[in-house]
Amino acid sequence: MQDPYGNLISSLAIANDRRIVLLVMDGLGDCDNDGKGTALRLARKPNLDRLAAENATGLIVPVGTGITPGSGPGHLGLFGYDPTVYEVGRGVLSALGVEFPLEDRDVAARLNFCTLDRQGKVADRRAGRIGDDENRRVLEKIRAQLKKPAGVEVFFQTEAEHRAVLVLRGEKLDDHVGDTDPQATGVAPLDPARPPHDASRTAQIVKGIFEQVRRILADEPRANMILGRGFAKHPDWPRFADRYKLNPAAVAGYPMYRGVARLLKIPVVAQPTTAADVCAEAAKAMKEHTFVFAHFKYTDKAGEDGDLAGKIRRIEEMDAAIPALLAAKPDVLILTGDHSTPPSLKAHSWHSVPVLMKAPYLRGGDGRDWDEVNCRFGQIGTIPAKELLPLAMAHAGKLEKFGA
Amino acid sequence: MQDPYGNLISSLAIANDRRIVLLVMDGLGDCDNDGKGTALRLARKPNLDRLAAENATGLIVPVGTGITPGSGPGHLGLFGYDPTVYEVGRGVLSALGVEFPLEDRDVAARLNFCTLDRQGKVADRRAGRIGDDENRRVLEKIRAQLKKPAGVEVFFQTEAEHRAVLVLRGEKLDDHVGDTDPQATGVAPLDPARPPHDASRTAQIVKGIFEQVRRILADEPRANMILGRGFAKHPDWPRFADRYKLNPAAVAGYPMYRGVARLLKIPVVAQPTTAADVCAEAAKAMKEHTFVFAHFKYTDKAGEDGDLAGKIRRIEEMDAAIPALLAAKPDVLILTGDHSTPPSLKAHSWHSVPVLMKAPYLRGGDGRDWDEVNCRFGQIGTIPAKELLPLAMAHAGKLEKFGA
Repeated sequence: MQDPYGNLISSLAIANDRRIVLLVMDGLGDCDNDGKGTALRLARKPNLDRLAAENATGLIVPVGTGITPGSGPGHLGLFGYDPTVYEVGRGVLSALGVEFPLEDRDVAARLNFCTLDRQGKVADRRAGRIGDDENRRVLEKIRAQLKKPAGVEVFFQTEAEHRAVLVLRGEKLDDHVGDTDPQATGVAPLDPARPPHDASRTAQIVKGIFEQVRRILADEPRANMILGRGFAKHPDWPRFADRYKLNPAAVAGYPMYRGVARLLKIPVVAQPTTAADVCAEAAKAMKEHTFVFAHFKYTDKAGEDGDLAGKIRRIEEMDAAIPALLAAKPDVLILTGDHSTPPSLKAHSWHSVPVLMKAPYLRGGDGRDWDEVNCRFGQIGTIPAKELLPLAMAHAGKLEKFGA
Repeated sequence: MQDPYGNLISSLAIANDRRIVLLVMDGLGDCDNDGKGTALRLARKPNLDRLAAENATGLIVPVGTGITPGSGPGHLGLFGYDPTVYEVGRGVLSALGVEFPLEDRDVAARLNFCTLDRQGKVADRRAGRIGDDENRRVLEKIRAQLKKPAGVEVFFQTEAEHRAVLVLRGEKLDDHVGDTDPQATGVAPLDPARPPHDASRTAQIVKGIFEQVRRILADEPRANMILGRGFAKHPDWPRFADRYKLNPAAVAGYPMYRGVARLLKIPVVAQPTTAADVCAEAAKAMKEHTFVFAHFKYTDKAGEDGDLAGKIRRIEEMDAAIPALLAAKPDVLILTGDHSTPPSLKAHSWHSVPVLMKAPYLRGGDGRDWDEVNCRFGQIGTIPAKELLPLAMAHAGKLEKFGA
């Protein structure tokens, strides 16, 4: 892997008993929401503001200037894995998101139910956004009628609405399989075994399965076909525990984030969702683990819903919860997000993300409230997200000197 | 070498008569020392503060976020050689540190005297920290009794206490030699010719020498064996003078820093130690040289000793000495450090390092005293250390335009 900085950090890592807690407030960063201000600036958060004034602040760039990260890359950066080097296939992320117990030999793909017209062209890429129940019913029909290819197990799993996951399990499967989703209407689904994928046995197997599915669903009014994309295998990456000589734990209430943790073999020890529970479980996990990744989802949810007031409220909930985590005395505590989710955009964005780090050996406190503007002047500066965990490790005495 | 920025700078370099002085106050950077403040902030330094207010300030990152540099990497960065690309072996640095006249065909290693128990296991990796006299006596015993391998000269040199240097000189020697230091007690020294080093003739020669040494020292009460690590050859790097079209000189009172200068073929013209002498000698060297590297050690020493008051005093000594250097009118004068050495850590650290650059063509003066907090807001910004010398060269008119 072309990741010289990450490899260097890994080569310098040493174990000690000090505790690092990475508390991710999903989608924390913001723009000014058409002049109203960022949620972090508008929130009444006396505990977080005091923490910022007495400690270090800064900004992280999740992937690169102008790049909007998905949840996978956003979190990989926070874990110190360069997201442009450690790319996870869409299929693997989808499988992790539904907590499918993916094995190294599996090939996974993201599926959309779609509606084909009489000419076999895609009329609706989301099959009229069918509900979860219809999704489950149609998948059951496929499962009942599909003839399994020799030596290959086939799993279909509902994600939500028109979204599902396909997993093939067998020996010597590969992920040289073309997307069948044409990403457009009025054209036919693509052949998964088209060049340059025509030499792949797996692509031929997928082709056979999709042809069967088309026959099985022919009389469905809406979901009469599937489109597949992001065929991918579980990557063989350095385990987080080995890379950093940390004993990690994940505290995360949502499947996607547990999935990203599992990708790095970080065990999930609790599944809280509220700010109070996230902080309480993170504090508990600190007893046995030298690194705790704690994930809080609701800031992102409010952002995606375009709900600025809601995002502010979620930050205020975290402000009220944080003393319980501080009471457990982490040696280094990082509060940040995996990306920005401005309510005025109702989506992930490319904006840098505010950071607050409580740690020993700082250059005094930054002396200001915690928000996107003040963070520009903080002692951490503006750094790539992948450098944040190494910085925390340095403050925790977990990195040896480089060279003599 | 994968160093595109450095190679580009080199390709743009042109010679002129302007003088650049790089004054390194070793270990200058600091953290807040448990709330007391940084040494630079606490020091009374009217000359340096005025210089900062009227000129440019900023911060440099020696190697990378969170990475604590040794003296070698710290200085290579200041000389514009990316320290993650230009890695110096431990043995070479040790040999340079004792001013051994290393040749390109030599292989050098750092040695520790150790104490082996009756089972041949390491009982003390530092042989009870024997003194320099015992070190010299035991090395003399080895020299007197060792049978030299055919065609190879063997040099042993005292460094200090339990530390020494081994140099092998001969044709076609390589550095594919394993460390024999197991970095632990209760285990036997390692075989230098173990895989993947078993094909190396040099590793076999080292093995034979170490077996002889064990017999020669068998009756010693404390230093009854040596441990070797960091076997390395003098690297074949671009000479500083060629890379930048500068006529360089080094003014450095301590062996390690003269050694780093020699690594880049920068001649050492004076060996002062006090602030006054460093500034006086640097001013003198400017007459004949377009680039002067001047090294002041005592700021680092005070930091390593945990002596905040001492570190402050050393900075104040430099403040008093600096007018003599300014009187020689360097076109560009850089004051900075090779890394941070906070007294509260008593060791090198990962913190960024304050910079002060007096030069023509600035964007006015930064208007503030010189310290770690103010430097965050300086016009240089926070940049990798390796970019500082190119910036100075630009201000000195020593870099051509890139492209038409």
